Amino acid sequence: MSNDDRAEMGRPGAYAKGVARRQEILDRAIEVFQERGLQGTSLRRIAEAIGVSHAALLHYFESREQLLVAVYEHAETQRGRRNPVPPETAVGVMTRAAVDNLEVPGLVELYSILVAGALEAGSEHGKRFFTARFERIRRELTERLRSEQRAGTVRDDVPAEQLAALLIAASDGLQIQWLLEPSIELERTLASLAVLLRPS
Amino acid sequence: MSNDDRAEMGRPGAYAKGVARRQEILDRAIEVFQERGLQGTSLRRIAEAIGVSHAALLHYFESREQLLVAVYEHAETQRGRRNPVPPETAVGVMTRAAVDNLEVPGLVELYSILVAGALEAGSEHGKRFFTARFERIRRELTERLRSEQRAGTVRDDVPAEQLAALLIAASDGLQIQWLLEPSIELERTLASLAVLLRPS
Repeated sequence: MSNDDRAEMGRPGAYAKGVARRQEILDRAIEVFQERGLQGTSLRRIAEAIGVSHAALLHYFESREQLLVAVYEHAETQRGRRNPVPPETAVGVMTRAAVDNLEVPGLVELYSILVAGALEAGSEHGKRFFTARFERIRRELTERLRSEQRAGTVRDDVPAEQLAALLIAASDGLQIQWLLEPSIELERTLASLAVLLRPS
Repeated sequence: MSNDDRAEMGRPGAYAKGVARRQEILDRAIEVFQERGLQGTSLRRIAEAIGVSHAALLHYFESREQLLVAVYEHAETQRGRRNPVPPETAVGVMTRAAVDNLEVPGLVELYSILVAGALEAGSEHGKRFFTARFERIRRELTERLRSEQRAGTVRDDVPAEQLAALLIAASDGLQIQWLLEPSIELERTLASLAVLLRPS
């Protein structure tokens, strides 16, 4: 930890400064991630690249997982800012999010690594983050699908909760298949879900 | 590497012995994985648990990834042997595979970690394995779906290739959501895909 970092703590305004310093570290970590990918983003290498000590980094982010979850969250917020108007249909939302993800190099890899890591024992931070994230997205999509069902534009013989879970799963899974096999036609395949959801 | 391992190489029958030895190491690695999960399965800890040297392990498996891919492949083959009669429909195949996966502790975690790892630079073994695996499963499911389309039991307004990719993606993604949130009703949600695939 640098003297600046040490001096920050315990003074008036220290919290606000701490928040700003954390954000600064995060911004640099995102750059490092974009330049070097996941393999280049050990805590030690990020600390080196940013020019802070390993200990300083651990003051703001307790683990590599916590820092990478913050990097992912930041990239997702940025995406939301670039595309402020949400598409109308549930399938449209999922398709656009998937297509947008693939435009940020390394983002789907980061997401997949973090989700897979969250399943492992000992990954409390990632587990909390992704459990809450899945829950929130399922809830938002379920509401959207329910109103589409009421409007008669989405079939109602399958509960909206199940459709929501399936749309998210299909989108997550297809992004991975597309990364390994780009002939998959991600956008068209996801858009086909709209056909499957049409009332008969 | 033990003296036995060294002595094996270069003698008549050495290849067959090498294959048997590799299988023996794999069997023990599977036990170690089942007891300790992914976190306990560094190459060094597997070598310790099996009672071979780290160098001997590297003779049979070049990397942790290669050993873990073999552990996964073995678990999948075992599952195929336990359930030799494949279910009739494409949705049935995917639903049963997903439900079976969840009965083997740690298997979905292992699968997710390996697939996510295969997306990273430098993971040639995993990338080859999962690209080929997805391709094979998509091809098998596409054939099955095509014959269901011809028989009139599956809708034909979405190409069978796209339906196959979507079924695999939905199954992979739902297993992860279920692990983080067991109230998801994995089997019922996957079975709902049969409703979506019904001809209108």
